[in-house]
Amino acid sequence: MARTDGRNDDALREIRITRGFQEWPAGSVLVEFGKTKVLCAASVQDGVPRWRTGSGKGWVTAEYAMLPSATHTRSDRESVKGRVGGRTHEISRLIGRSLRACIDLSALGENTIAIDCDVIQADGGTRTAAITGAYVALADAVTWLGAAGKLADPKPLSCSIAAVSVGVVDGRVRLDLPYEEDSRAEVDMNVVATDAGTLVEVQGTGEGATFARSTLDRMIDVALAGCAQLARLQAEALAAPYPGVLPTGPKA
Amino acid sequence: MARTDGRNDDALREIRITRGFQEWPAGSVLVEFGKTKVLCAASVQDGVPRWRTGSGKGWVTAEYAMLPSATHTRSDRESVKGRVGGRTHEISRLIGRSLRACIDLSALGENTIAIDCDVIQADGGTRTAAITGAYVALADAVTWLGAAGKLADPKPLSCSIAAVSVGVVDGRVRLDLPYEEDSRAEVDMNVVATDAGTLVEVQGTGEGATFARSTLDRMIDVALAGCAQLARLQAEALAAPYPGVLPTGPKA
Amino acid sequence: MARTDGRNDDALREIRITRGFQEWPAGSVLVEFGKTKVLCAASVQDGVPRWRTGSGKGWVTAEYAMLPSATHTRSDRESVKGRVGGRTHEISRLIGRSLRACIDLSALGENTIAIDCDVIQADGGTRTAAITGAYVALADAVTWLGAAGKLADPKPLSCSIAAVSVGVVDGRVRLDLPYEEDSRAEVDMNVVATDAGTLVEVQGTGEGATFARSTLDRMIDVALAGCAQLARLQAEALAAPYPGVLPTGPKA
Amino acid sequence: MARTDGRNDDALREIRITRGFQEWPAGSVLVEFGKTKVLCAASVQDGVPRWRTGSGKGWVTAEYAMLPSATHTRSDRESVKGRVGGRTHEISRLIGRSLRACIDLSALGENTIAIDCDVIQADGGTRTAAITGAYVALADAVTWLGAAGKLADPKPLSCSIAAVSVGVVDGRVRLDLPYEEDSRAEVDMNVVATDAGTLVEVQGTGEGATFARSTLDRMIDVALAGCAQLARLQAEALAAPYPGVLPTGPKA
Amino acid sequence: MARTDGRNDDALREIRITRGFQEWPAGSVLVEFGKTKVLCAASVQDGVPRWRTGSGKGWVTAEYAMLPSATHTRSDRESVKGRVGGRTHEISRLIGRSLRACIDLSALGENTIAIDCDVIQADGGTRTAAITGAYVALADAVTWLGAAGKLADPKPLSCSIAAVSVGVVDGRVRLDLPYEEDSRAEVDMNVVATDAGTLVEVQGTGEGATFARSTLDRMIDVALAGCAQLARLQAEALAAPYPGVLPTGPKA
Amino acid sequence: MARTDGRNDDALREIRITRGFQEWPAGSVLVEFGKTKVLCAASVQDGVPRWRTGSGKGWVTAEYAMLPSATHTRSDRESVKGRVGGRTHEISRLIGRSLRACIDLSALGENTIAIDCDVIQADGGTRTAAITGAYVALADAVTWLGAAGKLADPKPLSCSIAAVSVGVVDGRVRLDLPYEEDSRAEVDMNVVATDAGTLVEVQGTGEGATFARSTLDRMIDVALAGCAQLARLQAEALAAPYPGVLPTGPKA
Repeated sequence: MARTDGRNDDALREIRITRGFQEWPAGSVLVEFGKTKVLCAASVQDGVPRWRTGSGKGWVTAEYAMLPSATHTRSDRESVKGRVGGRTHEISRLIGRSLRACIDLSALGENTIAIDCDVIQADGGTRTAAITGAYVALADAVTWLGAAGKLADPKPLSCSIAAVSVGVVDGRVRLDLPYEEDSRAEVDMNVVATDAGTLVEVQGTGEGATFARSTLDRMIDVALAGCAQLARLQAEALAAPYPGVLPTGPKA
Repeated sequence: MARTDGRNDDALREIRITRGFQEWPAGSVLVEFGKTKVLCAASVQDGVPRWRTGSGKGWVTAEYAMLPSATHTRSDRESVKGRVGGRTHEISRLIGRSLRACIDLSALGENTIAIDCDVIQADGGTRTAAITGAYVALADAVTWLGAAGKLADPKPLSCSIAAVSVGVVDGRVRLDLPYEEDSRAEVDMNVVATDAGTLVEVQGTGEGATFARSTLDRMIDVALAGCAQLARLQAEALAAPYPGVLPTGPKA
Repeated sequence: MARTDGRNDDALREIRITRGFQEWPAGSVLVEFGKTKVLCAASVQDGVPRWRTGSGKGWVTAEYAMLPSATHTRSDRESVKGRVGGRTHEISRLIGRSLRACIDLSALGENTIAIDCDVIQADGGTRTAAITGAYVALADAVTWLGAAGKLADPKPLSCSIAAVSVGVVDGRVRLDLPYEEDSRAEVDMNVVATDAGTLVEVQGTGEGATFARSTLDRMIDVALAGCAQLARLQAEALAAPYPGVLPTGPKA
Repeated sequence: MARTDGRNDDALREIRITRGFQEWPAGSVLVEFGKTKVLCAASVQDGVPRWRTGSGKGWVTAEYAMLPSATHTRSDRESVKGRVGGRTHEISRLIGRSLRACIDLSALGENTIAIDCDVIQADGGTRTAAITGAYVALADAVTWLGAAGKLADPKPLSCSIAAVSVGVVDGRVRLDLPYEEDSRAEVDMNVVATDAGTLVEVQGTGEGATFARSTLDRMIDVALAGCAQLARLQAEALAAPYPGVLPTGPKA
Repeated sequence: MARTDGRNDDALREIRITRGFQEWPAGSVLVEFGKTKVLCAASVQDGVPRWRTGSGKGWVTAEYAMLPSATHTRSDRESVKGRVGGRTHEISRLIGRSLRACIDLSALGENTIAIDCDVIQADGGTRTAAITGAYVALADAVTWLGAAGKLADPKPLSCSIAAVSVGVVDGRVRLDLPYEEDSRAEVDMNVVATDAGTLVEVQGTGEGATFARSTLDRMIDVALAGCAQLARLQAEALAAPYPGVLPTGPKA
Repeated sequence: MARTDGRNDDALREIRITRGFQEWPAGSVLVEFGKTKVLCAASVQDGVPRWRTGSGKGWVTAEYAMLPSATHTRSDRESVKGRVGGRTHEISRLIGRSLRACIDLSALGENTIAIDCDVIQADGGTRTAAITGAYVALADAVTWLGAAGKLADPKPLSCSIAAVSVGVVDGRVRLDLPYEEDSRAEVDMNVVATDAGTLVEVQGTGEGATFARSTLDRMIDVALAGCAQLARLQAEALAAPYPGVLPTGPKA
C-alpha cells in the first residue's frame, strides 16, 4: 500500500533549512519537513538559572510552542489558558535534553543559550523538526559567542544532533510521518541521534497497541538512516557563512 | 534632523502584504512594515462565545502575541509565566474592536472569526501592522465563508481598516516609527481608520510629557494620510484571487 | 433631545472631592462624579521596582479595581477568578501613565507612590473619575513626603492632571457620560489633560461605528473645557490644609 | 493597666451602622467598630451554585476582602497576586457559615444572596465587624426579596447574628480589640452569637501561648454580653424603613 | 441511641501511632484514629522564610493535603486544579499554629521544620489526627536536630500537643466523630490542648444550627478528657528510641 | 564493580505488592521496589471526559504525584506552587497511555477508571513501580466493575502490563536502578511491556552522553527479562481473592 505522498517507506519529506530567518537572535533557523515549519531561535543570555549560579558553567534550555493557527483546526493559546500543557512541557524538555548532549557546557561560561521552537505550521513530526532545526540555530549561537570572545573552548560542539519520527502505518514501518499517517499510526517513535550514529534519545509508544521486539529493531534501523541524512543536510546548511553580523569580541 | 533610515517625516516604511502564508486557516497574511513582521491568521470556528449564543449573530475576536525571539532582547513567554500581560491584553482588545467596526456581524450567522496576530519580528508599530494585516486575513476569511455558503449577506464588510503609528520624535511629527524612534518618542499615537477616511480608534499618549492641541491635530493629519496609503496597498493585495482552495458551499 | 438628568451637553455631573477619607495612606480621596464614587489612595513605599533599583529615581504606579457590589449587577471578584481582566489592566496602566506626566520622578528618591483606585459605586466614567481623584491623592502624598524630608525638589509636581469622558449619544457630542448614556454611545472618548490645557492622553473609540475627523475635533474641544473645570475644583480642594497629621522629617 | 482608648475591659468601641450605603445592591451597609470600617453588600442573584441546582433551595455565600489601602501599611492586591490567601478564604467561609445559621434557605427558592464584605479601613476585628454588618445587609436583601414576591416564607430569618472579638491583653480579658491590642494579644477569640444568646461559632487561639479553661469561660461570658449589645444596635438600625426603592413583586 | 461502632459517647476510636514510617524525613509518623490514617512527616530545612531571616529564630510550618483516593468518593487533586482550596489552607494554618504553641523557636536557630500531613485514608477527624501525629513527628525532628548539634536549648518543647473532634450527634455530645457521624452532626468542634490540660485552639461551629452555652461547656469537658488520653498515647509512643539513624553533630 | 546493594546487574530489587491498602477505592495497591513505595489507587467514576461523551466507550486516566516527604530532600508541593511540573505531567501521561494498551475501553461503557499513583517514598524507578502497581489496581477495579454488572465484556484486559528501569552505570547495563545509581547513570531507560513479551513503551535517554545501538539492544534484553519476572509477581498477587467487599450488580 503506497504512501499518500508517493514517498518510499524509508524516505524523508523534502527538507529545507533557512538560516538567518530573524534579525535579532544569535541563531534563527526556519526548518521545514514538508509542510511542517518550525522557527528555531537561539538567544544568548547573560547568566544561568539560579540553581546553577556559581558553577562557572553555562546552560542550554528550550521552549516549544505551537501558534494557534499552526494546526488544521485552531488550537487554544496556552498563555490565555494560563498554563502550559503536558505535551508542550514534555517536548520542551526533550529538545533541551537532546541539545545538551552535544555541547560542552563548561565552555560557555555562565551564559545561557535559550532555544525557542515555535511551530508556524504543523503537519506531523513537529518535535523532530524542532530538534533538527534547533541544532543549526545552536551552532550559529555558538559561532556568535566565539566571535564575542565568550567561549573558553573554541569548539564546544562535539557532534551534531538530528531527529526524525518513524512509525508503523498500514502494517509497514515508515519514516517521517505527516499528520495524515501519524494520526492513524499503530506505533509511533521519535529517535534523536548524532552524526556519529550514536543515540541520544529513543521514545517509542504503542497507543492502543503493543509491538514486537523485531518491529522496534526495524524502526531504529530506518530512523538512524534518516538521521544520518539529516546530519548531512545540516552540515551543508552550516557550510555557508554566518548569516548576520558577528560581534567583535573583547580580544580580537 | 533626518530620520535614521532616510525617510521623509510623513513616509511609511516599505510595506509588504503576503496572503496565503499558512495552509490551514481561512485567511493567513504575513504583513511587514519594514523589519516589523506580523503573521495574521483568521480562523473560522463554529459557534460564538457563550454570552452571545442564541443571538443569531457572529463574532470577531483577536489575540495578539509576541514570539520570545521577536524582540531585540529575548522576552519571556507568557504561557510559561502563566498570565497574559497588560500590554498584550490591551492590544488584543484593540485589534478585535477595530475589526468589528467594518463588519456586519449579523451576516456571519453564529460563527466566530478568530484572528491571531503573532509577531515574528518586532521593530516598532507591531499593533498597527497587526491591524492592517488582520483586515486582509479577515477579508479572506469572509471570502471563504461566502464560498462555504455561510453568509447571510454576501458583502458583510462595509469598509477596510488600516492602522499606523505617528509620534513626536526630535521635536517633529513623524509617521510609522521604528523601534529606534519609538523608544525615544515624546508623544506616541496610534490611529485606526477606514478607507473612507473616518476614524475607528485614536490613542495618543505623552509618556513623561504632554502635548499641545495643535500637535494632536498635526498627528491626526499625518496618520490619516498614512492610513489612506495603507488602504490602497490592502486593496491591491486583495485584488489577486483567494490564495488557497475555497470550500464548496451547501448551495453550489 | 435632552439628557435624562437634564444637564447641558457640555456640563459635568456634580463633582465632589473629599480628602482624608482613610486614616493610614499618605493621600486618600473619595471622588464623586454624580453617582460614580471612586476611592483613590496614595501610599508611600520605600524602594522602587527591581528594574528601577539603583537609578536614584522614584516611581508612581496605579492599580484600578471595582468592588463586586459597585455595578448595577454584581460582578465577579477578580481575586477569586485568579486573574486580572484585560479592562482592569488597561485602566491601571492608563492611570499610572497619566500621573507620571505631572511629576518629576527624580525628586522622589528611590521611593514609590502606589495609587489604588477602588470603585465603590459605578455609574459611567470610573476611569476618568479615578484619574481626577488620584491626582489629588498624589498631591497629598507629595506633601507628606515633603514633610518627611524625603523630597530632593520641594515642588516635584509640574502641573495638575484631570480626566473626563466625552461621547456621541443620540447624535450629539456630550460630556461626562453616566452609564445610561455610555452604554449606548456611538463614540466614546477619554481625555486626560493638564491645568495648562495640554493633552496627556486621548483615547477615542467607535465600537461598531466610525466617526468623522470633525467629530473628533468637537469632542476634544468639549473635553478640554471639562478638564479645565475639573482642574479648578481640584485646586479648590487642595487649597485646604493637609487633612491628617504630617510626619516630622529627619531634619526640621 | 488601662486600655489606650480609655474603654472598660468589657466595653465595645463606638459602633455605627449605616444602611443604604450603595445604590445597586439589595442590601448595602457600612459598619464601623471604632476606626474599623467594612462595607457589606448583599446582592440577589438568580440561581444557585451547580451542586445545589434542582434542590428548590436557595443559598447564601460570602466573600471577604481587604482594600490594599485599608491597612496601616499597604497590602498587596490579591487579584494581582493571582490567588486568594489562606486568611481571606478562611474569613469568607466563616462569614457565609455564620449567616446560614439564621436563615431558612428553603424559603428563598433557587436564589442566591451573595454577601461582599470589603474592608475600607482596618483597625482590628474586621471579620467580626463584617459578620455584624453582613447580617443587616442580609436582612435588607430579604426585605427586597419579599417585596419582589420571591419568598416562600415571609419570615425566613429565625434570629439575628452578631460577632465580636475578645482576647487576653496585658493579662486581662478584653472585648473588641483594636489593632494595637490585637497585635500583642496572648489569646485571641472570635465569637458569633444570636440575639437569643446561643452560639454559632467559637474560635479561640493562643498563638505562641496556651490558655486555661477558666480563661476560656471568662472570654465567652464577655463576648456573649458584647454580642447581645450588638444585637440591640442591629435591631435599632433595622427599625428604620428600607433605605431604597423596593421592587413591586408579581403579586402585589 | 447507640453509636454505629458501639463506642461510648466519650470514647476515642482505636488510636495507633507508628514512628519511622518513611526513611528520609527527620520525623515520620503514621497516625490512625480508627480508619482515618494520616502520614505526618517533619523535614528539617536550612534557613527560614524571608520575612524571618536575620531574626536568629527558627520556624515551624505545616501543609495538610488529602490524597485523591483517601475519600469515599475520589476527590480532585489540588495541584491539577492549580489552587489550594479554602479548607486545605485553613487546616494547614491550624496545624502550624498549634505546633508553634509548644516549641521555643529561638532554640532552633535559623532552621525550619516543615510538617507535611498527607491524609492516606479519611474517615472523619483528619485535622485532629494530623495535629496529634504531627506533634510526634515534630518531637522526632527535634531529637534529630539535637543529635546534629543544632539546638541552642536541648529541650525546646515545653509541652505536648494533641487534638480531637467532638460534636453533637443525635442530640448527644460525642467524642472523635467518624465520617458517618460528622456528616450529620448538629455542632462540630475541634479542640487542641496540651498535656498540661491548657487549651491551644478551640473551634466550634453550628452549621445550620446554633448551640447553647451549656453544650459548649460539655463539649470542652469531653474533648479535654480525650486530649489527655491522646497525650498519654503520644508519650508511650515516644518512650521508644528514635526509629532511625541519628546524625552525629559538629561537636560530639 | 559490584552494585552497592550486592545485586546482580540483571536482578530486580525486592518487590512487594499489597492489594487492598485503602478502604474506599475499587482497587488500591501498595507496590514496593526496594525502598521505593508507591500507592496506586483505581477509582471508578460515572461518565467520561467531555470529548468522549456519547461514544459509548470508557476511559482510563492516571495522575502521578510525589509526597513532599517522599524524597531525600523535601520537595515543594505542586498544589502550593499552583502548577503541575513538566516531569509530573510527563509521567502521568505515560502511566495512562501504558494502561490503555491492555484494556478494551468499549467494554467499560461510559465509565472512567481514574488511577492515582502517589509516591510515598522515592528511591529511583518511581514511574516504573507506579505502572507495575497501577496494573494490579486496574485489575481489581475491573473485577469490581464486573461484580457491579457494568462490563459489556467480562474479560476486558487482554494482557498484563509491567515496567522497569534499566541504565548504564559504571559502564555496565543494570536493571532497576535505585536513586544512588540513577543519579549517576550515563544512560537511563524505562521499558513498559506485556506478559506476552511485546513492548508498550520504550524511553531511553542519554543525558550528557550518547549511546551505541548495541547498548540499546542489551538494555532492551535485560528490561524485557525484568518485566517478565514482574508479570509473574503480578499474577501471583492477583491469584488471591479480591481484598474487599464487592458490589452486587444489577443482575445477580
